[in-house]
Amino acid sequence: MRKIEYPAAVRELITQLRQMPGVGPRSAERIALWIIRARADQPDQIARAITLARTTIRPCTRCGFFTTEELCEICSDTSRVADQLCVVEQPTDILPLEKTSAFRGRYHSLGGRISPLDHVGPEDLRVKELLDRVTNERFSEVIFALAADVEGEATTNYLVELLKPTGVTMTRIAHGLPAGTGLESADELTLYQALSGRREL
Amino acid sequence: MRKIEYPAAVRELITQLRQMPGVGPRSAERIALWIIRARADQPDQIARAITLARTTIRPCTRCGFFTTEELCEICSDTSRVADQLCVVEQPTDILPLEKTSAFRGRYHSLGGRISPLDHVGPEDLRVKELLDRVTNERFSEVIFALAADVEGEATTNYLVELLKPTGVTMTRIAHGLPAGTGLESADELTLYQALSGRREL
Repeated sequence: MRKIEYPAAVRELITQLRQMPGVGPRSAERIALWIIRARADQPDQIARAITLARTTIRPCTRCGFFTTEELCEICSDTSRVADQLCVVEQPTDILPLEKTSAFRGRYHSLGGRISPLDHVGPEDLRVKELLDRVTNERFSEVIFALAADVEGEATTNYLVELLKPTGVTMTRIAHGLPAGTGLESADELTLYQALSGRREL
Repeated sequence: MRKIEYPAAVRELITQLRQMPGVGPRSAERIALWIIRARADQPDQIARAITLARTTIRPCTRCGFFTTEELCEICSDTSRVADQLCVVEQPTDILPLEKTSAFRGRYHSLGGRISPLDHVGPEDLRVKELLDRVTNERFSEVIFALAADVEGEATTNYLVELLKPTGVTMTRIAHGLPAGTGLESADELTLYQALSGRREL
């Protein structure tokens, strides 16, 4: 007796859906069965939204954030503080920082961090573009907001050395105890950084 | 200062992805950002797979399983047992039963179960088609494999009454202790059903 399976188009759909981050075999099957059984045109709208986003969204040529134009909404907003630059690893790091309302300046997304193990060097990132911007755009402060891990630290240190000749003031976001947590849940390194980064009251 | 958001095409994509079952706001955003940043053509393949499945997959006119033809792979397989019919609620219930290899007959998917609270009556399900098949296809046994809950039971009871005049033998799958579990984890009703459904050894 033949082994019964879903028709090829359904199996192909499950395979494709599994490529999406966080979607395992079971949820891919669940989504696929929803797609083929949905009465309204929701699945077609999803397919169209994917195609539209893929064809219209590109990185801002200046900072690397998502945009449909040459420059993104942040870079083209003349009301923002023009002399502060916040350097992040990914364009997806920008919105979380925006939501804090603690920063009203410009951003620069590197597109990653230096990682010799993954064969990512400065030349694979938007490092030259950063140097050009710091040289030409007259920032009074460059804030590094990279990850608080070994590679984030190494990338920050590399960039600090690189930008030193420009004479710009450079700062790094604080590393310490996360909001709402007690000392008992913090690891040793976090506590070390919280201690050594203490501020006078 | 303007509130910075993703471009409209990205927000629309997030909105659309949230329609998929099991995809909440955070995973929709994660998938959307993956879609717009993926280098290869994976997202385009996903969009194509959705469209292909939507345009080619339809229910088997006889049993309701998924197919691209008039009849599904099961209904058109002449090597299968022709005189046993297994009635299920959904076409998605068929593959799990197939995987057990305990049944080699035909299926009939009702497309749901009778549920007065959801305004689903027999006329909304493939009940007339079931009666026609039982009348015409000369089954020696009709097996009900509906959910072991109130509405599944009520639907089974309704169908048993409906099919009684045909004289066909009707059975129901066993309700009892699930494999690999102890008595301490079973609820009262499961234990009641396990006891009353006991078999001689």
